[in-house]
Amino acid sequence: MELQDIVNPLFLQKMSIKEMEQLADQIRAFLIASVSKTGGHLSSNLGVVELTIALHRVFHSPQDKLIFDVGHQAYVHKILTGRAKDFKNLRQYKGLSGFLKKSESEHDVWEAGHSSTSLSAALGMAIARDLNDEKYHIVPIIGDGALTGGMAYEALDQIGSLKKNMMIILNDNDMSISRNVGAISKGFEQLRESRPYHSLKGEVKAILSKTKVGRSMLTGLRGVRDFFKDKIIQSSLFSDLGIEYFGPIDGHDLRKMIRIFSLAKDHEGPVVIHVVTKKGKGYRFCEEDTTGQWHGVSPFDPATGKPIKKGDTGVAWSQVITNTLVRLAKQNEELVVLTPAMMAGSKLQMFADNYPKRIFDCGIAEEHAATLAAALAQSGKRPFLSIYSSFLQRAYDQINHDICRTSSPVVIGIDRSGLVGEDGDTHHGVFDVGILRPLPNLIIAQPKDATEAQHLLFTAFKQDKPFALRYPRGSRYFAEVKQLMEIPVGSWEAYESQSGEKAFILTYGDDVDVIKTEIFHREWPVTVVNCRFFKPLAEAMLYSLAEKQLPVFVYEPDMLAGGLSSAIMEYDNDHNLGLHLLRYGIGDEYVTHGSVAQLRKHLGLDLKHFMEQVKKELG
Amino acid sequence: MELQDIVNPLFLQKMSIKEMEQLADQIRAFLIASVSKTGGHLSSNLGVVELTIALHRVFHSPQDKLIFDVGHQAYVHKILTGRAKDFKNLRQYKGLSGFLKKSESEHDVWEAGHSSTSLSAALGMAIARDLNDEKYHIVPIIGDGALTGGMAYEALDQIGSLKKNMMIILNDNDMSISRNVGAISKGFEQLRESRPYHSLKGEVKAILSKTKVGRSMLTGLRGVRDFFKDKIIQSSLFSDLGIEYFGPIDGHDLRKMIRIFSLAKDHEGPVVIHVVTKKGKGYRFCEEDTTGQWHGVSPFDPATGKPIKKGDTGVAWSQVITNTLVRLAKQNEELVVLTPAMMAGSKLQMFADNYPKRIFDCGIAEEHAATLAAALAQSGKRPFLSIYSSFLQRAYDQINHDICRTSSPVVIGIDRSGLVGEDGDTHHGVFDVGILRPLPNLIIAQPKDATEAQHLLFTAFKQDKPFALRYPRGSRYFAEVKQLMEIPVGSWEAYESQSGEKAFILTYGDDVDVIKTEIFHREWPVTVVNCRFFKPLAEAMLYSLAEKQLPVFVYEPDMLAGGLSSAIMEYDNDHNLGLHLLRYGIGDEYVTHGSVAQLRKHLGLDLKHFMEQVKKELG
Repeated sequence: MELQDIVNPLFLQKMSIKEMEQLADQIRAFLIASVSKTGGHLSSNLGVVELTIALHRVFHSPQDKLIFDVGHQAYVHKILTGRAKDFKNLRQYKGLSGFLKKSESEHDVWEAGHSSTSLSAALGMAIARDLNDEKYHIVPIIGDGALTGGMAYEALDQIGSLKKNMMIILNDNDMSISRNVGAISKGFEQLRESRPYHSLKGEVKAILSKTKVGRSMLTGLRGVRDFFKDKIIQSSLFSDLGIEYFGPIDGHDLRKMIRIFSLAKDHEGPVVIHVVTKKGKGYRFCEEDTTGQWHGVSPFDPATGKPIKKGDTGVAWSQVITNTLVRLAKQNEELVVLTPAMMAGSKLQMFADNYPKRIFDCGIAEEHAATLAAALAQSGKRPFLSIYSSFLQRAYDQINHDICRTSSPVVIGIDRSGLVGEDGDTHHGVFDVGILRPLPNLIIAQPKDATEAQHLLFTAFKQDKPFALRYPRGSRYFAEVKQLMEIPVGSWEAYESQSGEKAFILTYGDDVDVIKTEIFHREWPVTVVNCRFFKPLAEAMLYSLAEKQLPVFVYEPDMLAGGLSSAIMEYDNDHNLGLHLLRYGIGDEYVTHGSVAQLRKHLGLDLKHFMEQVKKELG
Repeated sequence: MELQDIVNPLFLQKMSIKEMEQLADQIRAFLIASVSKTGGHLSSNLGVVELTIALHRVFHSPQDKLIFDVGHQAYVHKILTGRAKDFKNLRQYKGLSGFLKKSESEHDVWEAGHSSTSLSAALGMAIARDLNDEKYHIVPIIGDGALTGGMAYEALDQIGSLKKNMMIILNDNDMSISRNVGAISKGFEQLRESRPYHSLKGEVKAILSKTKVGRSMLTGLRGVRDFFKDKIIQSSLFSDLGIEYFGPIDGHDLRKMIRIFSLAKDHEGPVVIHVVTKKGKGYRFCEEDTTGQWHGVSPFDPATGKPIKKGDTGVAWSQVITNTLVRLAKQNEELVVLTPAMMAGSKLQMFADNYPKRIFDCGIAEEHAATLAAALAQSGKRPFLSIYSSFLQRAYDQINHDICRTSSPVVIGIDRSGLVGEDGDTHHGVFDVGILRPLPNLIIAQPKDATEAQHLLFTAFKQDKPFALRYPRGSRYFAEVKQLMEIPVGSWEAYESQSGEKAFILTYGDDVDVIKTEIFHREWPVTVVNCRFFKPLAEAMLYSLAEKQLPVFVYEPDMLAGGLSSAIMEYDNDHNLGLHLLRYGIGDEYVTHGSVAQLRKHLGLDLKHFMEQVKKELG
């Protein structure tokens, strides 16, 4: 059978265990070949091949609801629900999403991109089902990493209280994105060690093959428990919350999973089935990865595991920040670093290697991480809170209530701000300026290049108040600057063209150099301004701009509502400057996935189009 | 001793248990007398009188850090640290804060107002202490209600992993604000029932009085545990997270608490001491309260417990909403209501009485509640998510990622939006417009009065997309409208003066009628506009305003940055309307506590001042 011929998961019903095992091999080969060409999430998907097959064999999607937490581990689900043929366009503009999408398939019953939402989703569906007196199974599949997110616990608390029927699959691979931290992770470790699932596997297999107990005798989990007796360990964490717990089970043993899921699915009340999987299973480079670098990958050579270079010789923006942090930490022993589970993603390993006692991985726990940063700052430390823009949304209240309200000197490093490209609508970092700008006491900046990044980071730690520093995905030319300098807070920099001055372009980040180069190359009479501070604004420069009565373009590839131009208009209005802005940014829409270049074109923000607009205005 | 004479808690060191018990009585009488005059948080403070005395006896604040979660239960702490004399101005403008404030006392080492931050704070302080090689005790005091907040669990997870020394006091009163919900609460109930602390009290007392074991034998908790043997129950929830657990202990037994805190304080690693207190202890009306109505109170008669009426004959805004929800639920059986632990605060009891199966109290769990609402909406239900504006900040990401991104038809009832008055900077609901406005698919509205509220709520449930409806604290005249009507989304209403039209005033909410009345009474030629939709804007009306080339005042008692006027300016700029706005709102500052009238004056937003500005402009 060709994977491309799959229409829906019904074909699994006719397969023997052996055939399903062969299917698993086939899917793994397909995933490696396919993701090596397009890039995408690999390790997490290789880990759940058998688990996903077993789920689709036992449950009847879409009547039964399979709810994948985050959703980047749902490639196998996509294959089994008829989307193998679309993997050639995975994560590309108008191609298959890297996450679940209701618009793609009726089998995608819940969309996510941020972690730890699946249990709340499952409870919502269960409440609706029971109010409607309907009968179907609800199966959230959540990783051990996602369980460190507080909202998962909030949901478990109410699930345990309301006792709604659902089967929670705890997919335990001992690694969320980089290696799990936290006590709960250690707890799972102990569970695994106290009764290694490998040996359990043998025992259970033996029992299963010898005993021919009728299905009728085993309906409901009481049956399973009596059957396995104490061979399956009860976790008190879930029991405390009023949820039955069974496991651990080998997540690569199809026969056993199918048996247990079948037995457990008619259990009354919520039940957790703890499944142990190996992330990256079946592909050596992924299996051996302990740092999470195989979590999300760019195209690579399947034979060597080496990335296929695109001739990009720059240094990752996050690496620029880490290098500078290491340098600053040498002079300032109060400097500490916090990350909510993004050690690999934000390239913080070098800091950990240099200052292992001064870096703290908080797990997928953005709320806690932000308040922890506030407390460290209030205790005399100088924390750098590294956080993706999109995940910072989770910590908005803590940044407001604990950091900004108290004016605690936390430097918030907003990684992956702006459009992130292939990860799509759940991951674009385009809201942070709008939500942070109204916060009193906060300084917000973004460097135009790696040199300015070093100076701005140095500047950030010189302030006695909170400072948010944005930087995007991608990379820039990087050379360590000799002398770090403090950049005046609220200053912008104007680059005047030698051809005169008939308009202004205000922009920030990477786009400053891109646009400046275009303008200077074409010898257009336009001054380009690097608006490196969103807050406070460069007031004097705004006055001088206004005096010149020239067209002012603002090119801001983030949400327009509440963004840089909005800030300028507020100042303009209140000080009667009389500016009129020509704004180019993201309107009132969620932005889909695709390369950043394609997305900009989609949004009317591509350079060609923008330059045409400027040309029109110049006449 | 007069409580007013207390300078710091050192005097406790010389007191006998009997004297401290008398002190407790004295404090209770003072609290009841004082709060009956000023209003404030009563039940929670009456519950922790002995606990707070015991903590200040055993620990040496401010060297040792007492971290009160939320902080509204810290009145006793305020009294013991020299602030009894200031209680006459409790929660009043420039008076004592109802929460902890670093600016008030060196004993206030952590400020909060939102729940569940104390454990993250404690961990931050512990990390800083250990990095600095300092020695002092860190004692977070957290209620069982606050433990339902996910970030508390995120923090526990890392505390259990890093094994930092701290003594976590779990103040278990079986009631956060209204009665606790959720499995964890049931877990505590079972703990209490399995070994009633009342009988335990007797046993321990007996042992303590008979045995004279030297302190040296008992240093560290190992000693305590051996001493009490199995008389103290171990909770597996905390043990699973790697945190030692002891309890429950009678939180009104000074002798025992002092003994156990003294023994436990030098324990290596984190330890939880589970203390059972009775909320409202010592004041009958509070003790008998099961609904949470004595949580935060207005001035009352101590003898009868009856509130002292201020002649306010209106109906609470939240009650107006609940009444209408009950009415709408009759016609629409898909309508369900969610609240994160604000059953009493948001006056939802009437809905629970009418539709007990269609209302869900999620606990202090805003994140989960918002995603649960999204899942219910996606399952065909019509959820009303009732949430205080200030606490909605906690759910920003879920509102963005799960509700708005998927355009799920959730009606978000934003209770206590705008300035809330006496609760101060942590509680003002002034940020929501700015953070919600950039979210695609979302409609945002606020009614000018109770009649419009009913129509707007009816309208909200008619939309097939998310709808946020703001309403403030306080009350309005309420009469049930006969026929509910759909109000066109994005429409504003203009009230023209009979004296002509020489200016416009744009405003929303309660202020529409207040300002209109002033204008009409003075017969000024000003049109007052009810901007009942923040998003979408009333575009046609903006065009017609612009055509008239008249001064446009915007009176918006929320954060100016990103608010209504900002939205108007964005539209104005992009459509070349040429408006110039005279904006009156909250600038770049956190607003202190005090009556709303005083705060408005403080902010230059009082009616008198505003009308003077209008008059100036009219010439």
